[in-house]
Amino acid sequence: MTATDGRPHVVILGGGFAGLNAARGLTKAPVRITLVDRRNHHLFQPMLYQVATAALSPGDIASPIRSILRKQRNVEVILGDATAIDANARTVQLADGGSLHYDYLIVATGARHSYFGHDEWEPLAPGLKSVEDALEIRRRVLLAFEEAERESDPRRQQSLLTFVIVGGGPTGVEVAGALAEVRNFALRRDFRHINPRSATVMLIEAGPRILATYPDELSDRAVTTLRSLGVEVRTNTMVTDIKPGAVIAGNWTIPTCTVVWAAGNMASPILKTIGCTLDRQGRAVVEPDCSVPDHPELFVLGDAAAFHQEDGTTVPGVSPAAIQMGDYAAKIIRAAVTPKRGATAPRPPFRYWDKGQLAVIGRGHAVADIGKFHFSGILAWLAWVFVHIFFLIGFRNRVIVMTEWAFAYFTYQRGARLITGETSEYSIAPRSKLPAGDTAPKLPAART
Amino acid sequence: MTATDGRPHVVILGGGFAGLNAARGLTKAPVRITLVDRRNHHLFQPMLYQVATAALSPGDIASPIRSILRKQRNVEVILGDATAIDANARTVQLADGGSLHYDYLIVATGARHSYFGHDEWEPLAPGLKSVEDALEIRRRVLLAFEEAERESDPRRQQSLLTFVIVGGGPTGVEVAGALAEVRNFALRRDFRHINPRSATVMLIEAGPRILATYPDELSDRAVTTLRSLGVEVRTNTMVTDIKPGAVIAGNWTIPTCTVVWAAGNMASPILKTIGCTLDRQGRAVVEPDCSVPDHPELFVLGDAAAFHQEDGTTVPGVSPAAIQMGDYAAKIIRAAVTPKRGATAPRPPFRYWDKGQLAVIGRGHAVADIGKFHFSGILAWLAWVFVHIFFLIGFRNRVIVMTEWAFAYFTYQRGARLITGETSEYSIAPRSKLPAGDTAPKLPAART
Repeated sequence: MTATDGRPHVVILGGGFAGLNAARGLTKAPVRITLVDRRNHHLFQPMLYQVATAALSPGDIASPIRSILRKQRNVEVILGDATAIDANARTVQLADGGSLHYDYLIVATGARHSYFGHDEWEPLAPGLKSVEDALEIRRRVLLAFEEAERESDPRRQQSLLTFVIVGGGPTGVEVAGALAEVRNFALRRDFRHINPRSATVMLIEAGPRILATYPDELSDRAVTTLRSLGVEVRTNTMVTDIKPGAVIAGNWTIPTCTVVWAAGNMASPILKTIGCTLDRQGRAVVEPDCSVPDHPELFVLGDAAAFHQEDGTTVPGVSPAAIQMGDYAAKIIRAAVTPKRGATAPRPPFRYWDKGQLAVIGRGHAVADIGKFHFSGILAWLAWVFVHIFFLIGFRNRVIVMTEWAFAYFTYQRGARLITGETSEYSIAPRSKLPAGDTAPKLPAART
Repeated sequence: MTATDGRPHVVILGGGFAGLNAARGLTKAPVRITLVDRRNHHLFQPMLYQVATAALSPGDIASPIRSILRKQRNVEVILGDATAIDANARTVQLADGGSLHYDYLIVATGARHSYFGHDEWEPLAPGLKSVEDALEIRRRVLLAFEEAERESDPRRQQSLLTFVIVGGGPTGVEVAGALAEVRNFALRRDFRHINPRSATVMLIEAGPRILATYPDELSDRAVTTLRSLGVEVRTNTMVTDIKPGAVIAGNWTIPTCTVVWAAGNMASPILKTIGCTLDRQGRAVVEPDCSVPDHPELFVLGDAAAFHQEDGTTVPGVSPAAIQMGDYAAKIIRAAVTPKRGATAPRPPFRYWDKGQLAVIGRGHAVADIGKFHFSGILAWLAWVFVHIFFLIGFRNRVIVMTEWAFAYFTYQRGARLITGETSEYSIAPRSKLPAGDTAPKLPAART
């Protein structure tokens, strides 16, 4: 099953930033590329929280991988689920029974959120990695307000209006800030029996400070901004259990029906089948050329890779790093398939160029840590907006997202506030199924 | 449980065109309104086919009912499922066990598609009434192309590339035209092993002609346009069975994995609980004032009502009729609650003002039947676009939809081509689950 048309066969697992950029980097290379992804779309994950908080529609931040690569004739896109890698036989097993033989393999399968061994928490506290995750969170948040509107028991009403975000990294901060704005502005006048402003948005971080990868002063700035938006920030608070209706941190019980999990990742399980060393987050420990030991033809990129830098740190799991790794692997393969140099081509080690980090907190608020510059507020926010719009794949999406943002910015409204899909069987609010469980509707008599 | 603040209590079931307009018509009336809907959003159904064919996102054609009515302080919106009406006790039963007492009731619960007693067809041939319906159809259509790309058996490949729309009314025509365009343009260069243009789009109508409510010449014009787009139109063809993998019409079997049902409606079941006469489509036969016999306080509007006009025809189930009925019922109630005239207020009969009908067939093609004017082509299409954008609820949606359309029009691309959500257990293509069932992937060797 080796390539029969002479061209080496490059198989890419994952159509995220790393995989997509690797494919594009091989546009002119004399190779045949097969890109396999479980989904048909590339997702612009940095803005996924905007879908979860009803500002954008999924279509605004995702494009079909096929159409992104339509003009690159040496790529074939397969919608499929890779289940195992045989690094010695150089084959990838697909869930449908098929298999692909490769000359070069790029594993860019990313990561899912992890619950530190408490997988039973997942149905109660969804994470934010896929479009489905985002829609599920959006559905739960909007349903919680709907139910609270009809709830007569004040204690349960308050727990319906309590939103807990676990994890004070960029995602947690972005979700907390966005939820605070939904509460403060978007829903302000929609209800008759509850005041959405009375809702509690709580950000819980186990460590001593949020945005731990940022300089201290920016962490502090973020806390100040979040508090000004009305978010309760609790650091040094370790979640010890999540039950239907409550989050437990040590001997502190927080009654809540809506929890968002933004703490901790685990790289995709397929890496286990390579047989290389994995770190605590399940990431493959890679060589300076992003390949795994003894397999110069097998690269692991992006969130799936643990790349140790000279300073002892590992390359962070952010999109710029994934993009750079994708470009790098493409360059290495281009050199290796050049007749003249061939496999003997030297491999200068990968170097992550840290352009800095940006985290948005809310409308007009962000923190930026760019080289020597640490700044926050509207300036950082504008930087964030334009960096992200610029990288957002697809002209259409740029236009639409800009329109939606202009709309959201000037009206404080959120356009994508739809509750769709089946109600999950495993909501943290067991009574949040539609029809609205056994909550007593507010009856006319009850209103006098 | 009667109103205790003196104001009569108007309960409205359904936030569609009829219910929403009835509520708005009572803005200044001395009444207390409770609008109950199973969904949190009003859906602009006339453009739902655009979601099913990946041109628009659900958020573009739906707005939360709460925010539409947020400024109308005499309305309370309840997300809930009304299950039964006790016309004598004047109460509405909710699925969650609660109940609402009313002084006036407006039933505007619309219709679902019906399978003429063959409910077992539903999982195989989804209809197009809700956002979920549209997303399911979009998912099946896009998945069919994905599977065909990897299918090695040419016969199954062709059945994957055959799309059958059952029912030649406006919805069927719109879906058929839009699918033809997806095939002709949007996907043109995305695949490596199949040519999307080789896909078959078939429109099946049991009656002698499509768009039966239109003048003959416009039906013919529609057929010509559909054929020019490459749609196979079969009239006088009655579907006798739908099986996994095939649609059967008499002794003709059409191998297909994707069927869209656009043939026939059934009004919502709650009407059965009123105890009034229902017609064959389950619609409540209403009096000239849109109320049901012996219950002047109970109105049935829109697709849920069978309103017989003097000319013997019934008012068609189109949005303009629903809007007019909503306005009418509001007017009647306004008069009835005016202290001076009170319940004795005369009730001039409802008259449906037929502004004409418009059906879009494809990019730049539509047919219009407006009074004495019958026209088609680009002019009718522009009329359709502007009428629909104009009525589309919400400023934001107008802007976004216009942007998306401009984009789609000038690039032939479809922006919302995402495959999301769980794969239905009951796909007509039993093998279309992700991972892609047991279809053999195209292997390198197979490609030489």
